[in-house]
Amino acid sequence: MDGFSFSTEIRVRFAETDAQGIAHHAAFVVWLEVARVEYLGRFAGGYQAIRDRGLEALTTDVSVRYHRAAYFDERLTVWCRCVDLRGARFRYEYRIVRGDELVAEASTSHATVDRETYRPTRVPAWLAEAVATAESAEP
Amino acid sequence: MDGFSFSTEIRVRFAETDAQGIAHHAAFVVWLEVARVEYLGRFAGGYQAIRDRGLEALTTDVSVRYHRAAYFDERLTVWCRCVDLRGARFRYEYRIVRGDELVAEASTSHATVDRETYRPTRVPAWLAEAVATAESAEP
Amino acid sequence: MDGFSFSTEIRVRFAETDAQGIAHHAAFVVWLEVARVEYLGRFAGGYQAIRDRGLEALTTDVSVRYHRAAYFDERLTVWCRCVDLRGARFRYEYRIVRGDELVAEASTSHATVDRETYRPTRVPAWLAEAVATAESAEP
Amino acid sequence: MDGFSFSTEIRVRFAETDAQGIAHHAAFVVWLEVARVEYLGRFAGGYQAIRDRGLEALTTDVSVRYHRAAYFDERLTVWCRCVDLRGARFRYEYRIVRGDELVAEASTSHATVDRETYRPTRVPAWLAEAVATAESAEP
Repeated sequence: MDGFSFSTEIRVRFAETDAQGIAHHAAFVVWLEVARVEYLGRFAGGYQAIRDRGLEALTTDVSVRYHRAAYFDERLTVWCRCVDLRGARFRYEYRIVRGDELVAEASTSHATVDRETYRPTRVPAWLAEAVATAESAEP
Repeated sequence: MDGFSFSTEIRVRFAETDAQGIAHHAAFVVWLEVARVEYLGRFAGGYQAIRDRGLEALTTDVSVRYHRAAYFDERLTVWCRCVDLRGARFRYEYRIVRGDELVAEASTSHATVDRETYRPTRVPAWLAEAVATAESAEP
Repeated sequence: MDGFSFSTEIRVRFAETDAQGIAHHAAFVVWLEVARVEYLGRFAGGYQAIRDRGLEALTTDVSVRYHRAAYFDERLTVWCRCVDLRGARFRYEYRIVRGDELVAEASTSHATVDRETYRPTRVPAWLAEAVATAESAEP
Repeated sequence: MDGFSFSTEIRVRFAETDAQGIAHHAAFVVWLEVARVEYLGRFAGGYQAIRDRGLEALTTDVSVRYHRAAYFDERLTVWCRCVDLRGARFRYEYRIVRGDELVAEASTSHATVDRETYRPTRVPAWLAEAVATAESAEP
C-alpha cells in the first residue's frame, strides 16, 4: 500500500462479532495493537524488548474511521507505519483493507514512560533508529 | 459536568486490565458504548427499541484521548451527550472522570441503517425528539 | 437463592454479544470474575486488598454449563459462594439467573500465590475467616 | 500430540493480558473457539458453511484446566479434536501447549440448532462425515 511498508494479517474471530452480525468496532482497536506488536517484532526486537529495558509505551490517542463492516472469519490486512517519533512520543497510522477495499483508517499516539515511575522517558536511540530504518525501507 | 446532562458509572473489571497494570485502552471504547446504551435507555426506550423498529446504529468513527490511566476496581463516571443529530447521522461526546480528574475525552459518530439492507436511513422523528428533549434538559 | 448468600447484577453489554445475536459464551467467564471481585469487596476488603498484601489469586479451573442464551441489555443476577477453602486453594460456585430462569451454572478454582515468586501461598487467616463469616451468614 | 490430528497456533495479544502480567483466563476460551473455527475450516468448509445452511452451533459447556500461565507475545499451539458427535450434539477436546509444556486442557460441548427457531437440529450427515474423516486421519 502506498506509503506503507509493513502489514500483518488478522482473521475476524467469532468472539469479535456482535449482534449486528459484524465485527464489533472495539475489536479494530485490538487489531491495531496486534499490528504494532508485529511491527516492533519485525523491526525492533519486539515490544517485550522495550519492556525488558524498563520502558512501557502508553497509548494516548486512538482514532478509527470505519468505512465498511468486517465479517466473521474474514482475513483483513492491517497496514501500519510509525510516524512523528520525537522525544517521548510517537504515532502510528493504519489502513485496514480487505483485498482492494478500504475497511478502516486509524491512527494511535503513544508515549514512552519509565516502567517503575510512569514518567515520560525519551524514546531510546536504538528504537528510534530501528523505526527510521523500517520506514525508509523500500516496500 | 458542564454541558453534559447524563452520566453513568462503570467499574474497571479485572479482565479489562492489561500487563501494564492499567485498564487496556480498548476497554474505554466499550465503556463509551455502555454509556450510549444507558443514555438511549433513559431517554429513548433503549437501543433495543431502535433495533425493534428495524434500524441499527453503526459506529462510523471513534476517537479517544487518554489523559490518565484507569486502574482495576476503580469507579469511573462516563458523561455523554448526543450532538449533531441530522439526517441519518449523529454524534456523541464523552468525558470519563474519576472524581475531579479527567481520565479521557472521546467522541463517536454513528449512522442509522436499515437492519435488513444496511442502507442509510434517516434517524426517526421519535428518536430525534427524544434526544432533543434530553439535551435541552437542565442537568 | 438456596445455599447462596451473595449476588450481584450484571447487564449484558452490546460488545459482549456475538453474531448469533446472544451473549458470547466467553463473556460469562468475565461475569463470574465480576461476581468474585464484588464478593471479595463486600466481605474481605476487595481483591486489591489481597494484592496489596503480596498475593495473587490465580484461576486454575473454570467450568460453565450454559442452560439458556442471554441477550443484549438483559439484567442477570450472578449468585456466588466460596467453598472448599483450604491451604492455598479455594473454589467458587455460581448460578446465573434471569428472574426465575437458570441461565448458567459454573464453578471456578483458584490458588493463592506470592506476587513476586508465584509460589503457592496459604490463604491468609484473615481471608479464610472473612469467607467463613460470609458463608455462615443468613441470606 | 497423541490422539490429536489438528492444531492451530495463536499468539498472546497484549489486550489479552491482565494486571497479573499473564494472559487472562477468559482469553483461553476465545482461543478454543479460534481452534474450532480453524478445524471446521480445514475439514468441513468452515463454520460459515454451517451457518449458511441455516444452523448455528451453540456452546453448552466449557471447561478449562489451567496448568501454567501464558505470557504476552508467546506462541501457543492449540490441539483440538471433535469427539462424541451424535444427534444434535458434539464435543471438542483441547490441549494448549507451549513447546513441550502443557499450558491448559479443555473441553467444550455444543448443540446444533435451527438458526431461526433455535430448536435442536440433528448434526447434518455431511458435517458428521467430515468430522469422522478428520478424526480417522493419520496425524
